[in-house]
Formats: sequence, structure tokens, C-alpha cells
Amino acid sequence: MEEANNNNESPYISSVLPGWFSEISPLWPGEAHSLKVEKILFQGKSDYQNVMVFQSSTYGKVLVLDGVIQLTERDECAYQEMITHLPLCSIPNPKKVLVIGGGDGGVLREVSRHSSVEQIDICEIDKMVIDVAKQFFPNVAIGYEDPRVKLHVGDGVAFLKNVPEGTYDAVIVDSSDPIGPAQELFEKPFFETVARALRPGGVVCTQAESIWLHMDIIEHIVANCCQIFKGSVNYAWTTVPTYPSGVIGFMLCSTEGPAVDFKNPTNPIDADDSHTKTRGPLKFYNSEIHSASFCLPSFAKRVIESKGK
Amino acid sequence: MEEANNNNESPYISSVLPGWFSEISPLWPGEAHSLKVEKILFQGKSDYQNVMVFQSSTYGKVLVLDGVIQLTERDECAYQEMITHLPLCSIPNPKKVLVIGGGDGGVLREVSRHSSVEQIDICEIDKMVIDVAKQFFPNVAIGYEDPRVKLHVGDGVAFLKNVPEGTYDAVIVDSSDPIGPAQELFEKPFFETVARALRPGGVVCTQAESIWLHMDIIEHIVANCCQIFKGSVNYAWTTVPTYPSGVIGFMLCSTEGPAVDFKNPTNPIDADDSHTKTRGPLKFYNSEIHSASFCLPSFAKRVIESKGK
Repeated sequence: MEEANNNNESPYISSVLPGWFSEISPLWPGEAHSLKVEKILFQGKSDYQNVMVFQSSTYGKVLVLDGVIQLTERDECAYQEMITHLPLCSIPNPKKVLVIGGGDGGVLREVSRHSSVEQIDICEIDKMVIDVAKQFFPNVAIGYEDPRVKLHVGDGVAFLKNVPEGTYDAVIVDSSDPIGPAQELFEKPFFETVARALRPGGVVCTQAESIWLHMDIIEHIVANCCQIFKGSVNYAWTTVPTYPSGVIGFMLCSTEGPAVDFKNPTNPIDADDSHTKTRGPLKFYNSEIHSASFCLPSFAKRVIESKGK
Repeated sequence: MEEANNNNESPYISSVLPGWFSEISPLWPGEAHSLKVEKILFQGKSDYQNVMVFQSSTYGKVLVLDGVIQLTERDECAYQEMITHLPLCSIPNPKKVLVIGGGDGGVLREVSRHSSVEQIDICEIDKMVIDVAKQFFPNVAIGYEDPRVKLHVGDGVAFLKNVPEGTYDAVIVDSSDPIGPAQELFEKPFFETVARALRPGGVVCTQAESIWLHMDIIEHIVANCCQIFKGSVNYAWTTVPTYPSGVIGFMLCSTEGPAVDFKNPTNPIDADDSHTKTRGPLKFYNSEIHSASFCLPSFAKRVIESKGK
């Protein structure tokens, strides 16, 4: 792990606007979001991906994996709060939670707001992401400080296969895009493994791309999930300015068992403010935006409902 | 009006990624959204602003005013449908509608879906915007073909001052940002003039910037509107990928008179599909997303509700 000396070393910086980071990818051809760079703080190559951290002019520090923005200090609240509280507020008294990916610790920070939770496992494949988060994003990596957290560095799919059937109340899959190390996490065998690890009526929430960019991927995920999850299957979305097209979606599913009504949170975290003493107030999530996030634009609704049930 | 011969003529193209249009503005410092340019189709300078149209690689044709994206063929549906149907679906039987700005004709296209409407006035200051829309964006400018539309080319504020008190059921202010020709449309005297032109219980919907970028502007607009509009005052937002931060907001207000409950549409356009025969199906708007658009992230809710009533 070594720090970069100047801005010219990164392939992502030099190829575009001088002094700007531009996010160019075949997953969103023809468009690019750029952030002005004050200083590159870290560049490294792990066994899995290129890892970069830079100080931006107006979005705080930024974590980039393989050239794609994973989080900025300014807008990470939207993603971390939604991917966590959408599943955990949809079931009463979640006790055992597994996070796949999420090495930055932001999802852990949000899970730890739930006082009912007794065990928080996290399985992140890339140790460099964890180390970088702890060094540069203390307000995100603070999630690791909760004594209920148990960190497993390794492959999420292998980890899940070794978990006893019916272990978890909730699984949160905080993955990067389906190009690179996270590819498997969008495929049917992975969802089958998740379903097996959940208790009856347990829930999973996975990062599920953008309705504006990836309806083909979403259609595929919805079709798979409808086959595998015999409880509820719903798609939600929210705004994250620094993600491509400005939105990100979530696939929420429950296994056969006690019914889960994802659209109407039964376990409202915003009704109890004890967690705000140590974690600060929620910046983004509330019960109204929880329900609202399941309302889809007509173009997405038509596709998702035709695949769904 | 003359067409451009090559991509190198535009100050907005040459200054950034070669072959890409980048949107850089003091209104969103430190970030830029870029679209790959296939061909510049038009560049002109009107009495009010620089006007440009280009063919993008993946967002269809794009209209740019003073370097800021106004619409792309791929995502214009979200903005046009929301800014129009949020107000018109909130009141029963809208008959007289005024559009301020909106020279591209997209709002007219959406207003014309409402069969109750008898008169659609539009006051656009810049004739070049209208001409360019008719030439390059026929599916947007189609709104002008409705015989109920009466076009007034001129200043919206002056137009409103000459309108008899209580004329309109709804006023839609489809403006650009508060730097340039639209600046006046964000100030208190303008809102007073709008309120005067509305019937009791009439509604206005104005473009009201981004919760991620412009809470200071929004706070100011909300405070002004609460003083002027004695009915309802509400803020809504939606996703538009090619607008800065990926979202755009709307200020919805009603004058004293019959109560208006903006969050629960009383006049659902999606319950009647007669308009889809000539205009095609709605791509974005539906009654659920109408109600959902008023649910705000906690950081925005705290500010807006402290200024609101």
C-alpha cells in the first residue's frame, strides 16, 4: 500500500480532462461523470482490482475501484442508508445479518443502528478496500468498530456455501458492477446460495443497477429472483448523484415463510433515535422515502411487472 | 439560423474532452457531466443566449442553452411529464393553462393529453428555441400542433402582468437556471404575479433545482412561496440523468380557495388512455410516482419543512 506522489500517475486522470477524474465505462457508453481532483491520496493494485482514493474539490474524498466511483463523502449516505434500512426495516427484530462486499464499512455503520441485531458478519474479498477505507474514510469505516461485527476476508460465494442453512435474518449484497470481481453476484447460482442461507421469511437486498441504463440486467435479475425467492420480490431505487445516471436500484426478496411487505416498513428505524447518539442522525433514509422508493417510472414498471409476480 | 459545419466551432466542445460535450458551470462547481458528440447540428446566438443542438452517441439529440443541457431525447420524458402532470393531475378539470418558458414544446405536448383543457397559452422569450425545437426535436415540438395552443413570444413577467386577475387554473414555469434570462423567475415579485393570474385554488408548478446542489436556492423559494401562496406549498423531485446531480425539483403551490392536496392526485391522467392514441403512452409519470415524488430525503425534509408550513 503506497501513496501516490502526483496526479499524473493514474490512468484514469491522465486520459481525460487535466486535473479531473472521469468515469468512462462500457457499462454506460457515451457518457461520463467527472469530478475535479484536488489531490490523489492513494493508488494501488490489489489481487482483484485497481484501488484509488482522491480528494475532490466539492464531493469530499472519493473511493474508486477499477475506474468506477464507489463512494464520495458527500453522497454516500443515500446508498448506504437505503441498501441497509430497506431490508432491515422490513422485518421485525433482525438478529443475524450478513453483508457481502461492502468493504468500506458504510453498510456496517448503518446495520449497527439496529439495536435488535446481535451478529453482523461481513465477507469482503479485497482486503485493500478495507485498509483504504479505514485509513481515508473514518466516518464510513466506523462501522467496523461495532463489537457485533465479525470480518471474513474472502469470497462471498464460498462463504455462503459453508453457512448452515437458514442462518441469517437478512443478507445485504453491496457489490460493484457485474464486470470484474462482482460478476458472480448477479447470477442465479449466487441467489440460490443466498436463499439457502436465509431463514424462512428472511430478506436479501442487492445492489441492482440503474433503471435508466441497465433494464436488460434488471430484467434478468428480476426473472431469476422470481424463480428462486418464494416470498416477496420487489425493486426499489434511489438517487445517488455520483453513480451513473444519478440513480441506483435494489432488488429486495424474501424467502418462503412469514410474509414480508417491503413497501410498508414494519420496523421503522426513524421511530427510535437511540442510534443517533453514537452514529449521528440519518441523513437520507426515512419511512416515507422507504415506501416511495418502490414506486417506479412507467417505463421500468412495465418491464419489471411483466417479469415479476 | 445557420448550421454548424464541424465540431470544433463550439466553445463548449473544444474546451474539454475532445469529441465530448461537457457541462461545466459555477452552479455545480467541481463536477461535470459529459456526453459523446456524434455531430453538432446547430449553433446560434439569439438575443438571449447561446443555442446548440448536437447528436449524441447514446442520448439522442441534445438541446443546450448557454452550455447547459436542457433536454435529451432519451430522458426528456421524466422532466416534461412530471412538471406538467404534477400540477394538472392535482386539480379537477383544468381548463386554462399557461406555460412560461418551455419553448421546446414538450410541456405543451403533455398538457395536451388533458381533454378538459380548453386553452393553452405559452409565453417563451426566445424565438430561436422554438424554431430549433421544431426543426430538430419534432417529437417534443409536436406540442405546438394542438389547436388549443396559443404562442406568445415575449417576456413571461410582462405577459403575466397584463393577464386579468384569476385567469388560469394552472401555470407551469419551465425555466432554465437562475443565471441568465430566467433569473427573474426565481424571485418573489414573479411569484406574486403568478398568484394574481391564478383563480382561487389554482396551481403553479415551477422548475426548482436540485436538492443535492441547491438547498440554499430551494430554501429561498420555499420561504417566498409560503408568504405568497395561501393554499398548499409543497416540494417534489424526480430523476433526470442528464441534469446536474441527476435530479430536478418542482415547487408546487396553490392559491387560497378550494383546497389542493398535491400529494394525492385527484385527476389521474393514467386512469384515462384516450390521450395515448395521439401522444403515445406515458413513459415516466403515473399516479404512484406522483405521490412518491413528494417524499424527501431527511436532509432536504428538515430544511424544507422548517421553512414551510
